[in-house]
Amino acid sequence: MSMNRREFSRLGALALAAGVTCTLSAQTPPAGNERKTGYAVIGLGRIAAHFMPGAVNSTNSAITGLVSGHRDKAERIAAQYGVPASSIYSYDNFDEIAHNPAIDAVYVALPNSMHAEYTIRAAKAGKHVLCEKPMATSVADCEAMIAACKRANVKLMIAYRCHFEPLHLRSIQMIRDGELGQVQAISSCFGFNIAPGEWRLNRKLAGGGPLYDVGIYCLNACRYLTGEEPAGVQAFASTIDHDGRFNEVEENVSWTMRFPSGIVASCATTYGANMTGYFKVYGAKGWVQIDPAFNYDGVHLRAELSGQVIDQLSPSHDPYQFVAEAEHFSHCVQNNLEPQCPGEEGLKDMRYIAEIYRSAGIAT
Amino acid sequence: MSMNRREFSRLGALALAAGVTCTLSAQTPPAGNERKTGYAVIGLGRIAAHFMPGAVNSTNSAITGLVSGHRDKAERIAAQYGVPASSIYSYDNFDEIAHNPAIDAVYVALPNSMHAEYTIRAAKAGKHVLCEKPMATSVADCEAMIAACKRANVKLMIAYRCHFEPLHLRSIQMIRDGELGQVQAISSCFGFNIAPGEWRLNRKLAGGGPLYDVGIYCLNACRYLTGEEPAGVQAFASTIDHDGRFNEVEENVSWTMRFPSGIVASCATTYGANMTGYFKVYGAKGWVQIDPAFNYDGVHLRAELSGQVIDQLSPSHDPYQFVAEAEHFSHCVQNNLEPQCPGEEGLKDMRYIAEIYRSAGIAT
Repeated sequence: MSMNRREFSRLGALALAAGVTCTLSAQTPPAGNERKTGYAVIGLGRIAAHFMPGAVNSTNSAITGLVSGHRDKAERIAAQYGVPASSIYSYDNFDEIAHNPAIDAVYVALPNSMHAEYTIRAAKAGKHVLCEKPMATSVADCEAMIAACKRANVKLMIAYRCHFEPLHLRSIQMIRDGELGQVQAISSCFGFNIAPGEWRLNRKLAGGGPLYDVGIYCLNACRYLTGEEPAGVQAFASTIDHDGRFNEVEENVSWTMRFPSGIVASCATTYGANMTGYFKVYGAKGWVQIDPAFNYDGVHLRAELSGQVIDQLSPSHDPYQFVAEAEHFSHCVQNNLEPQCPGEEGLKDMRYIAEIYRSAGIAT
Repeated sequence: MSMNRREFSRLGALALAAGVTCTLSAQTPPAGNERKTGYAVIGLGRIAAHFMPGAVNSTNSAITGLVSGHRDKAERIAAQYGVPASSIYSYDNFDEIAHNPAIDAVYVALPNSMHAEYTIRAAKAGKHVLCEKPMATSVADCEAMIAACKRANVKLMIAYRCHFEPLHLRSIQMIRDGELGQVQAISSCFGFNIAPGEWRLNRKLAGGGPLYDVGIYCLNACRYLTGEEPAGVQAFASTIDHDGRFNEVEENVSWTMRFPSGIVASCATTYGANMTGYFKVYGAKGWVQIDPAFNYDGVHLRAELSGQVIDQLSPSHDPYQFVAEAEHFSHCVQNNLEPQCPGEEGLKDMRYIAEIYRSAGIAT
């Protein structure tokens, strides 16, 4: 397999991230003189409920602020994490975090369309930003977020938790080490049967359908597994159920990608069926799959390499992916390092999502 | 799920085929006055070595002729199946089968490009034709084969053995019975790492690459699983290995299909990696997969339907699929019935293959 320098260095970053994760979280106590990175969490929904215990279980991160439209909910969570009432903000007075020295960074866990505004406001307040995926709902918003963080000289990372999942990293390593031989094809799907009323079904808030929310895991995985950027995409989208859920976003997207080396990928995502997220990579000497791949828990790698069978169930439990993610970003903040998945990584996915939508005939 | 009359009747045919198979092969002795259908096998390669024991293990089929360019090989096999020396033909004197009353039908197991010629010559000789998939290497050849068999008033069936595989039939039944709820998406792949020198790598003989040979199983499965015809296809093809194998045909094809109901399918096929053939169907209430799906042996169905888990490994062993296939076609021949997968079924796949190639930018 041919690998260019950028790929090697990218893999290096991933391996480093894994190393940092395993070493620090398992063994290394925080340096006595190293202040923990304090996060203000913006949006106290489902994903934040994974991130917050993750952060406090890392060695170098703390929850030091909360931003919510629901003061009572925020107060309950504040009590849990030892956040003083003075560090609870509403969306109206959010910009005052600028004056709170306990807040080093924000974790943006809002509906997709609000990522850009709060990332940019956080940057203007001089805070580093860890922003959930998808980075935003448009390429232009992603570009504005990157520019704002550069201008403010703050770090920006997109919270691609699978970049810190040890079995995902092991798959990448197997591929780079040539254990699969030349990779030919990848299959990857991820979807779920969505409940009515979710903000994810509101186009303005979500940007689009399941590709933005869960299909992005397949897209991103195909990129880190190959170490390449797609040279072409083709897609179909459809809506089958006319039960009120899909008035604004599509229900299904099925797409193929061709990478410069010739590797092809077949992917699908849906909001109409439970579709456990997985990938399977097929190479000349063997295959590796993770199934389930994108769950918070129970990640399961299987491989067959020149006849040798590997079967490894992740021994870690939720929120381990968030522990590693927080650990890495805090480490970058404290040591002025470029994070593993900077804004540019989120921007790339947003560009491919736009291409997939164009191919499927959906206006973006 | 909405089903039209044609779908119902098609499903009926499949269920009938399954019923015929299970009932006849398991319990019913051949009717005393029913003469077995005698097959001349054309092309004594790998697939014929599955079909012949399959036919003789059915209740209503026999091997009564052989057509080969290798007389010594033919004689060895003739001895095994009790075929008289007078019923061994070469490609030169093949047409003389017309005068052999022990031969009712031919089983065409030649390289793809020869299917048309020998199907048409068999029809002209007044013999029914069971022809291996892919039906031919072009739409025009498929049309000529259908016309020739109609003109000669002989049956033509394409040997889609999975149409007779009980777990495939069970999957179809689950879907039609609504056990999966509305189907949204299908994922299906099938490929293998091809050895150099195979006729499958010769474009003139094979028609094309892995899509003709193994990808066609995925394509055909998506059609019988949905009971629909694809309304659109999009594809990428690529060749990565420049080791002499892929001078004439492509190594990889990845494609998506959109069905009229909105169901989407993501598929891939390769000659560059071992890719166990499978399909997985995702519906609103559950999923069903067969993995491996397209092997001669070890077919394994798993499903999760509204929480209920089904895990069924085929108890049958090779050549059971060929037993059922021969049983069905002989039954159709003896009772003047339309076979489950007539020439029109093979023609349809050939048309979709041509569309996939066009989308991938491969001239056909």
